[in-house]
Amino acid sequence: MSGQDSLSGYKRDEDGVLWIRNYVAGARIEMSYKIKDLLYYEQSPFQEISIVDTKGFGKMLVLDGAPQNSMREGFIYNEMISHIPIVTHPNPKNVAMIGGGDCGPAREAMKYAGIEKIDVIEIDKCVTEACRKWLTPISFYENEPRFQMIHKDGRDWIQETKENYDVLMIDRPDPVGPGAKLFKPDFYQLVYDRLTEEGLAVFQSGSPFYNKSTLEKTVKNLKEKFPIVRIYLINIPLFPCGLWSFTLASKKWDPLDADLNRLKDKDTQYIDRDVFLASFVLPKYVKDIVGL
Amino acid sequence: MSGQDSLSGYKRDEDGVLWIRNYVAGARIEMSYKIKDLLYYEQSPFQEISIVDTKGFGKMLVLDGAPQNSMREGFIYNEMISHIPIVTHPNPKNVAMIGGGDCGPAREAMKYAGIEKIDVIEIDKCVTEACRKWLTPISFYENEPRFQMIHKDGRDWIQETKENYDVLMIDRPDPVGPGAKLFKPDFYQLVYDRLTEEGLAVFQSGSPFYNKSTLEKTVKNLKEKFPIVRIYLINIPLFPCGLWSFTLASKKWDPLDADLNRLKDKDTQYIDRDVFLASFVLPKYVKDIVGL
Repeated sequence: MSGQDSLSGYKRDEDGVLWIRNYVAGARIEMSYKIKDLLYYEQSPFQEISIVDTKGFGKMLVLDGAPQNSMREGFIYNEMISHIPIVTHPNPKNVAMIGGGDCGPAREAMKYAGIEKIDVIEIDKCVTEACRKWLTPISFYENEPRFQMIHKDGRDWIQETKENYDVLMIDRPDPVGPGAKLFKPDFYQLVYDRLTEEGLAVFQSGSPFYNKSTLEKTVKNLKEKFPIVRIYLINIPLFPCGLWSFTLASKKWDPLDADLNRLKDKDTQYIDRDVFLASFVLPKYVKDIVGL
Repeated sequence: MSGQDSLSGYKRDEDGVLWIRNYVAGARIEMSYKIKDLLYYEQSPFQEISIVDTKGFGKMLVLDGAPQNSMREGFIYNEMISHIPIVTHPNPKNVAMIGGGDCGPAREAMKYAGIEKIDVIEIDKCVTEACRKWLTPISFYENEPRFQMIHKDGRDWIQETKENYDVLMIDRPDPVGPGAKLFKPDFYQLVYDRLTEEGLAVFQSGSPFYNKSTLEKTVKNLKEKFPIVRIYLINIPLFPCGLWSFTLASKKWDPLDADLNRLKDKDTQYIDRDVFLASFVLPKYVKDIVGL
């Protein structure tokens, strides 16, 4: 187990306790998570993958030293990136997700009987396997004919696929390194082109507190192509500073007019009708970022 | 300046950079803030007080190693602890605040012309002086006859005062050490007794993510005394995990029926009518904590 000490972000303190220390340049903070057990680690062709157990967040997936999701609050991200676009479209049949190889958002999408096809495009097969083994061993998609996992670079996939989708969910990483291409205008055009005439897409668009320019540019780029662009906010305790933004871009359907009855009786831990609507209410300082 | 290295929470890294490292037991995380300059520090009779400058949050007030508020996002806390109770009461005249010696919430209260009296009860005179000198040098209250600063223990004050208030704002610290008495049933009774017949009070009630029992007990205690008890949530980027709860307890007025026109034309950076209402919408997992 000595290899763990050379993993990105992992450090032992003077008492021998293992921590993940994640420096966030935008806010000049370091968010550190106390680790109970390092359960698994691996260098994949794309990144360092590890699975840890913690007392604060339960088990977590960590990529290149940055926690991605946890058992104790992962439902927040999973529900809010999926239910909102799926409910905004009145009758989505074809859905795809770029990123999210842990399949959390795909599991949420499965809760809608009308959905006929869910493609998950995850570049790194090792992420999917690690999550399946350590985080969600009883995986739903063994016997789920609607589900398809595609291990491919998200941008390559969207450029090459011939399919059209009603809903695309873009769970992209930060706009640095290999993730940067998922923040460029030509990527937004590719997303637009792969949506049906009534299609819509949702994009992870960063922290409105310390990543203002990511949100600002995302909205600006999307407004050049889509008639309807809406920001919504959620609080993700695992992420630095907590507040996170998503941007929904739509060819026809406005989330503020969505039929929220479709959320009724869904088995969720975060979202309901009121939370759906409240998440689109932006504090003044966030409106200022995007000139609303 | 060598004394700084013995201040609680302050540590230098191997490059000589100063950090404040704040361990949060509930979430097993450490939130660390990179410090540009330590501007001021002092051991008062009650606590270690320091004022630092940071690139992430601007200038900050730090008490016993825990950042309390910052120039870059302090408006969030200040606005949300004050405007919501003040607008809930249709015509508050007498207002008091326990804690908040930096006077941020009191400055917000000043924006309501109908308010005739604002008492701030801050145990530590040194906090007020440090904030006034380093954070808000142009202080409003020099020529503000409505304002009165009382340097006294909050619980002693509320037990001894003969005044009645329309709105009480309780900016209490965590329920450990000397702050614990502000979380006991007899304190809630004292608050009740010092409110007018139509009065209401708001309490800082902790993180709904890692301090569930604080929120749960606060709501339970208040429901035993007040007919109307409402929780609202805000995101404070400075605080660990971001999400924070306040609990409003009222003898007559319900915030959900408030006249939100009173917020119109108020000079704010966070709150407006929509934000007021949205802050009372609770994710399902928060409702579960309090059995809603």
